[in-house]
Amino acid sequence: MTPAPIDFYFDFLSSYGYFASLRIEAIAARHGRSVRWHCMLLGVAVMKVMGLKPLLETPLKGDYVLRDYARYLRRHGLELARQVSDPMMDPRPAARAFCWVKRHHPGREGAFAHALFDRYWRLGRDLSLNDEIGALAGPLSLDRTALVDGAESEQSRRDLRDAVSASLERGVFGSPFLIVDGEPFWGWDRLPMLEEWLERGGW
Amino acid sequence: MTPAPIDFYFDFLSSYGYFASLRIEAIAARHGRSVRWHCMLLGVAVMKVMGLKPLLETPLKGDYVLRDYARYLRRHGLELARQVSDPMMDPRPAARAFCWVKRHHPGREGAFAHALFDRYWRLGRDLSLNDEIGALAGPLSLDRTALVDGAESEQSRRDLRDAVSASLERGVFGSPFLIVDGEPFWGWDRLPMLEEWLERGGW
Repeated sequence: MTPAPIDFYFDFLSSYGYFASLRIEAIAARHGRSVRWHCMLLGVAVMKVMGLKPLLETPLKGDYVLRDYARYLRRHGLELARQVSDPMMDPRPAARAFCWVKRHHPGREGAFAHALFDRYWRLGRDLSLNDEIGALAGPLSLDRTALVDGAESEQSRRDLRDAVSASLERGVFGSPFLIVDGEPFWGWDRLPMLEEWLERGGW
Repeated sequence: MTPAPIDFYFDFLSSYGYFASLRIEAIAARHGRSVRWHCMLLGVAVMKVMGLKPLLETPLKGDYVLRDYARYLRRHGLELARQVSDPMMDPRPAARAFCWVKRHHPGREGAFAHALFDRYWRLGRDLSLNDEIGALAGPLSLDRTALVDGAESEQSRRDLRDAVSASLERGVFGSPFLIVDGEPFWGWDRLPMLEEWLERGGW
């Protein structure tokens, strides 16, 4: 029996989600698992459902997150154009483009998610612009017009709403958030625990 | 030159603070460090300063914390009388008793913190009761009356207020919260990163 995939939930706005995206496939592969990619929206989960403030606007924690971001980059040799304190993009167009690829090119949504994360964080681009979404089509051999139109389509809007609802129903409240065999793990700093869970088959 | 101690901030109400208290001295010893114990109050830092809800009353996250507590206990073979969902004690008498020991028996506050954590979490007792504070005196060779009176004294009330203010000035907002050579680490799931920081001398 093939073991179930790891469900990986993320928001493109989330630096910790980005960091986890760089490691999750290697972790999964070490344990014969695949990754199922799911977008969610922190603006809905954290601000609307949980009633919390954005991280950087939370006293004390905001300063910590800035520092934590900088030391993660130093530690892993990442050079990113985007600072965590930069103005955030509207995450919905990128999330809808992801939904469109997932529906119309299933199996390629992981590569597309990597490309979106990379363009937002490493290159510092604003993916709420059609041209920025469109620029991802070529390298992934997608049709540019179909992708840009798809990201704006009613179907993708419905798909994103459904994805966000489904994530909340599974108890997903952060990014990254991982579920393996029904067991939830929140935060990139829980990746070692997730890996131990995979090794032991739970406990 | 002796390396600086690790500053360890905790609230006795915090299960994650308790878990970290069980490991911090071994981590420090592996790197030739000692531990400086500091109490803080989540009720002030999280609820008043940060303006957040208590963890268990936060939608979605509350359920996750219950599950996370149970799996930590299973993984580490801990049998604790207290459930994380049990009514919480008023943390101030225990924190004041800790302040009293720190002032009047310096060097023994670490052992006393262990005893308080153990009695609250493993035995499930309510340390806001004088008798429960007093019961800790014998095993630690402290004078019972002096301890119980000390925990109620004006001096200890001032010491606790000062300790909480000092923690906020250093940016401490959770439990556990650790500072090593000026670098802050929040949460027991950051203990591996703290240990890597000690090993590498920072980065």
